[in-house]
Amino acid sequence: MSNIPLLNINYLVIMEKNVATNIFWQDGFVTREDRNRLLRQTGLTIWFTGLSGSGKTTLAIALEQELLSQGIASYRLDGDNMRFGINKNLGFSLEDRRENIRRVGEVSKVLADASIIALSSFISPYRDDRDSVRALHDSAGLGFLEVHVDCALETAESRDPKGLYKKARSGEIKNFTGIDDPYEKPINADIHLRSDKMTVAQEVLIVMTHLRQNDLLSPKSIPCEEGQKISD
Amino acid sequence: MSNIPLLNINYLVIMEKNVATNIFWQDGFVTREDRNRLLRQTGLTIWFTGLSGSGKTTLAIALEQELLSQGIASYRLDGDNMRFGINKNLGFSLEDRRENIRRVGEVSKVLADASIIALSSFISPYRDDRDSVRALHDSAGLGFLEVHVDCALETAESRDPKGLYKKARSGEIKNFTGIDDPYEKPINADIHLRSDKMTVAQEVLIVMTHLRQNDLLSPKSIPCEEGQKISD
Repeated sequence: MSNIPLLNINYLVIMEKNVATNIFWQDGFVTREDRNRLLRQTGLTIWFTGLSGSGKTTLAIALEQELLSQGIASYRLDGDNMRFGINKNLGFSLEDRRENIRRVGEVSKVLADASIIALSSFISPYRDDRDSVRALHDSAGLGFLEVHVDCALETAESRDPKGLYKKARSGEIKNFTGIDDPYEKPINADIHLRSDKMTVAQEVLIVMTHLRQNDLLSPKSIPCEEGQKISD
Repeated sequence: MSNIPLLNINYLVIMEKNVATNIFWQDGFVTREDRNRLLRQTGLTIWFTGLSGSGKTTLAIALEQELLSQGIASYRLDGDNMRFGINKNLGFSLEDRRENIRRVGEVSKVLADASIIALSSFISPYRDDRDSVRALHDSAGLGFLEVHVDCALETAESRDPKGLYKKARSGEIKNFTGIDDPYEKPINADIHLRSDKMTVAQEVLIVMTHLRQNDLLSPKSIPCEEGQKISD
């Protein structure tokens, strides 16, 4: 064991005095600002929407690495981990797909509130559903960035990394986004990326630039470090 | 803006060479160990189970403050925030209560996997449900601590912080744990606290001692810091 004290000294003093401590503690909830200060970053959700095969998860994976290399904690959510977890009791009916996005929006919000950058990649084809997730974050005072990973259907279909377009064309899968179910393009995405016309590195650069220029990562109350120059 | 570089230099080099980068990035997923190292802690779930009014949330709030004061990031989940969020479409039927715990177990797991200490306070009266949440963590190689916040029914009922026992006795609420629905006490809780016989400070000390003695907080791969003594 390390020599870190088991308890903050304040609590030991209270214990020695044998005072009922419930009120003391209830008075001082840990706030989101406390969490941000501790992790030296502000949580937010970056929501990647686009066709299957458009490169949402590829971008999220690259961004996760870039954030890590800059000392910023993030966590990826996508269909592959959520459909086997919290959403394993959901199918692919319209109702279930909407509930899928609702729950994932709530998990993203929890991560953002815990000061983590949630990187959420979901086709999320319906504008209403995406707007609801944004509203959920807005009402909690949490950041939400909608990133449209925009790719021509032909390109996404030619990639077909999971073989799903083939199944949709043959009728094996019904209600597949882009084939026999609509994809409602974002009207006012925070970031619009033509993933069929740029490299992943360029996409990462655009997202990182947006985050830095809008000062979305640093907690507002952290004082400058020595040698760090603040402009603006 | 600070003088932090917008992109790690590796990516810029790749961009200049105009190389397709998908494969490069897909090769190097960020791992849980990477996240643990970044936050200098290992995520786990501490699950508080006990009667309504037994002091689960009071303890979680005190522990959250103690962890913060030691520089450890945690996040509290309880009925009050989950029932208005991810579980807002659930009622109180047996089926819905079990689904409530299942989903909350999944959210706890996401937080723990993101290297955060999840502090989850739920009556969670059924042993099967708690064991499922533990199994979920076990199978993912994530830590799970079951803390039984054990309080005599008479004491919990006399506190009745939300006025729920009164409603249960009058029949206004049905299937209330401890009144007309069973509480299945843990058989092998990791920590058993008699919350009606000790102060919150004592409870916090017991939990913190358990965490430190079992070395549950520090990532295993972090080298000792100067001046830090490692025994065992």
